[in-house]
Amino acid sequence: MIAALPWAHVPSYLTSTMPITVRFCETDLMGIVHHANYLIYCEAGRVDWLHRRGVRYDEWARRGIHLPVVETRLRYRKAARFDEELVVATTSVEVTRVTVRFGYLITRGVERICEGETLLACVGHDLAPKRFPADIADTLRAAEVAATAGGSSG
Amino acid sequence: MIAALPWAHVPSYLTSTMPITVRFCETDLMGIVHHANYLIYCEAGRVDWLHRRGVRYDEWARRGIHLPVVETRLRYRKAARFDEELVVATTSVEVTRVTVRFGYLITRGVERICEGETLLACVGHDLAPKRFPADIADTLRAAEVAATAGGSSG
Amino acid sequence: MIAALPWAHVPSYLTSTMPITVRFCETDLMGIVHHANYLIYCEAGRVDWLHRRGVRYDEWARRGIHLPVVETRLRYRKAARFDEELVVATTSVEVTRVTVRFGYLITRGVERICEGETLLACVGHDLAPKRFPADIADTLRAAEVAATAGGSSG
Amino acid sequence: MIAALPWAHVPSYLTSTMPITVRFCETDLMGIVHHANYLIYCEAGRVDWLHRRGVRYDEWARRGIHLPVVETRLRYRKAARFDEELVVATTSVEVTRVTVRFGYLITRGVERICEGETLLACVGHDLAPKRFPADIADTLRAAEVAATAGGSSG
Repeated sequence: MIAALPWAHVPSYLTSTMPITVRFCETDLMGIVHHANYLIYCEAGRVDWLHRRGVRYDEWARRGIHLPVVETRLRYRKAARFDEELVVATTSVEVTRVTVRFGYLITRGVERICEGETLLACVGHDLAPKRFPADIADTLRAAEVAATAGGSSG
Repeated sequence: MIAALPWAHVPSYLTSTMPITVRFCETDLMGIVHHANYLIYCEAGRVDWLHRRGVRYDEWARRGIHLPVVETRLRYRKAARFDEELVVATTSVEVTRVTVRFGYLITRGVERICEGETLLACVGHDLAPKRFPADIADTLRAAEVAATAGGSSG
Repeated sequence: MIAALPWAHVPSYLTSTMPITVRFCETDLMGIVHHANYLIYCEAGRVDWLHRRGVRYDEWARRGIHLPVVETRLRYRKAARFDEELVVATTSVEVTRVTVRFGYLITRGVERICEGETLLACVGHDLAPKRFPADIADTLRAAEVAATAGGSSG
Repeated sequence: MIAALPWAHVPSYLTSTMPITVRFCETDLMGIVHHANYLIYCEAGRVDWLHRRGVRYDEWARRGIHLPVVETRLRYRKAARFDEELVVATTSVEVTRVTVRFGYLITRGVERICEGETLLACVGHDLAPKRFPADIADTLRAAEVAATAGGSSG
């Protein structure tokens, strides 16, 4: 039996999903997806999560808001292989004044492939920590925008 | 004025297109897509080209057919940036008894971002060259299958 | 004040260090090393750790022993940049019958850049868990071989 | 018989060599180095070539000089595998007012693994082409500095 995700209590509108197809170059000599690529999949899921809430990275960057990753934690449950279709479910788990924690569940059909969390900090151009502007904190706790342009893939 | 592509004479049914969204991790400190990633985009385009002709990699692998890249050539015309939507147009340019040449045009809207060619050789599990089986050579000169399952993304 | 590493109690002969120079392609548009690359640096440190104990990957692979990563945890403390010289200190923290935990401290001079842990499981060609052979378990608890061939770089 | 390199006529002081050890993550499911990684090896060789002539990237960047890659061409002759020690020999082949062409020969012992060329253009922060400053053009035609700090590896 697999334990519940630590963020199972979070309202479902804080989760968004996107498909990812495993690229050839993402495999290694064991014939499976190299473990570092799951951080890439999580990042793609996170970017898509923000898209679906009307955010584009360059707007935040122009305002001097960057979100570097300060902690990651991944648990690999099954191997994925070239050309498989995975789904990344990204959840905004917790927003503080200067950080946001996202949770990820990567699945292949009904199978759990990988799950994990990343902690991101709000910083300025100088990489010094700063408080989230109120509208950005709100966005990080928001549901998808109704008329989403359709999450980008890949 | 930009010159015609070297494979402009090839019938259009030998070209397939797929969208690619630039990932954050594919940029470098110049703020643009790192040049090595275009080989990844070409590879994704090539995999999709084969999908659209009913081919799955693992079927060929089970038959002992592999297609390593033996030559690449890329011309970078404009920089692409994070989160941009690109389109990879992949063309089967020339099939010989043991090689297949693909051409690629990567665009952003009407702009040419990158173009190039890759030469792939047919080899067995031992990486020694072997002649393409007739059905595979036919596939490499074929149009998309009518009821395509929908190109994989990413 | 930065807390002691969780594996501070481990005897120092279980730690080996290797230098890593940040590659251009490892940076992202923030001008810093993309966070996924630290898993690559840890992997390079781990491979070097094994080299220094007389182990070559292909020997274990030939015996049907593989060590996929099943858990990772990283804490990013400072940004690293292109061309900087980092040092990866890799420590064998705990060996069980079927897993080995490595700890990593990545520094730039006296600064802590990143620290983390990976849990690896012993599996066979079929990716099913198997017990470590006794000699391999011993190696995972061993000091560097005296006449090391000089750790590979990169 | 393998043909001479196109830049065989270039004086040998324009060539520098650096070792590269193949990383695990650089392999793919065929068990060999994924072809895109050779562009990474060439880039590492090029950075080292510049180091050995006293150049650090950030100095040029501060002067508003960037060198994006505008063309690449690679010929893959043999497969390389995890943990193998390769040598990248980088040669400054031709310097014009706004471009520099580097040639690369990647070997494993006496075997040619890969060879290729990259064309880089001199641009400013705005990515618009600009003429090489005289001292930089000189450096691109120079021998290694006598008391080199020892090229960084990796």
